[in-house]
Amino acid sequence: MKLLEERIRKDGVVKEGNVLKVDSFLNHRMDIELFSEMGKEFKRIFADKPINKILTIEASGIGIAVIAAQYFDNVPVVFAKKSQSINLDGSVYSTKIQSFTHGRVYDVIVSKKYLSPEDHVLVIDDFLANGCAIEGLISIIKESGATLEGVGIAIEKGFQDGGKKLRETGVNLHSLAIVESMDAATGEIIFREQ
Amino acid sequence: MKLLEERIRKDGVVKEGNVLKVDSFLNHRMDIELFSEMGKEFKRIFADKPINKILTIEASGIGIAVIAAQYFDNVPVVFAKKSQSINLDGSVYSTKIQSFTHGRVYDVIVSKKYLSPEDHVLVIDDFLANGCAIEGLISIIKESGATLEGVGIAIEKGFQDGGKKLRETGVNLHSLAIVESMDAATGEIIFREQ
Repeated sequence: MKLLEERIRKDGVVKEGNVLKVDSFLNHRMDIELFSEMGKEFKRIFADKPINKILTIEASGIGIAVIAAQYFDNVPVVFAKKSQSINLDGSVYSTKIQSFTHGRVYDVIVSKKYLSPEDHVLVIDDFLANGCAIEGLISIIKESGATLEGVGIAIEKGFQDGGKKLRETGVNLHSLAIVESMDAATGEIIFREQ
Repeated sequence: MKLLEERIRKDGVVKEGNVLKVDSFLNHRMDIELFSEMGKEFKRIFADKPINKILTIEASGIGIAVIAAQYFDNVPVVFAKKSQSINLDGSVYSTKIQSFTHGRVYDVIVSKKYLSPEDHVLVIDDFLANGCAIEGLISIIKESGATLEGVGIAIEKGFQDGGKKLRETGVNLHSLAIVESMDAATGEIIFREQ
């Protein structure tokens, strides 16, 4: 998606340690017009799928998923929660996700009430790097008996192996921008041709 | 807002300990059409304010805030983060918020890049009970020099003192539904007339 690639080039900041900071428009300050264009693009990509639910994970996936849902006939969005809340029923699907960004393991849960075998699910998230978060969401979908129709990612770090692993297992994965390489010294970002 | 009150009566579940569970449409599974109606109502309420930014707090405020932003000419939405991420610059506004739901104290941060004296801020969140989260966001806005134009809440627990305290200090606070009382034994919910 050219618009997103251009925005990453313009406002993304490459830091040492394979960090790409996009908090000025994607995951701290959120650019709603950009999100709308991303939502339209997800709809274009997954138009032939009978999607009736979007699943994402707190926190930075929520904004993108909610705006995108408007282009999928306002399907409900469920967000997986990163720790057991006392306000949730005990009846949950759960998995553990390793976060390299935060350097720890999260328990991730989805109430069994909100995923079922009737669901055709599109997973949406802001970033894909090693793929742990998406693998966790997929394992929750499998446990629920729902059908995974696809995974839509805003920015994939193509030089990490999450995308490769998911595609090899047959997941219908599409990333709006795939960073092939980036250089913290020069700030240069090279995108994969799609 | 009648639509929200009716939905709370229909799908909200009152539990012991003053817990109102609305995770089937508000803060776990999110009803996007309802969020759109709530966004229109926030715009109607705050139409005369020169709002150029919406501030919320992760995670369950984000969906409501992002949809609402579309009715405020797509102003950017900034969400406060509940713990220091190593992906954030050190240059942040911060405060501590006591969460009774989760039984602990959070550090809450907003990058200094995304709040400044030029900003006219609408704060949006899903719940108001004791008001700690909103007070924390207001202290961050004050620290930044931005102008607080108003606070929009989906559901206020009117029998807790957060709303009263905020209104007494002159905050332009509007809640779409105010629960005056609720009864875990009968499930009855009484709303304040607005």
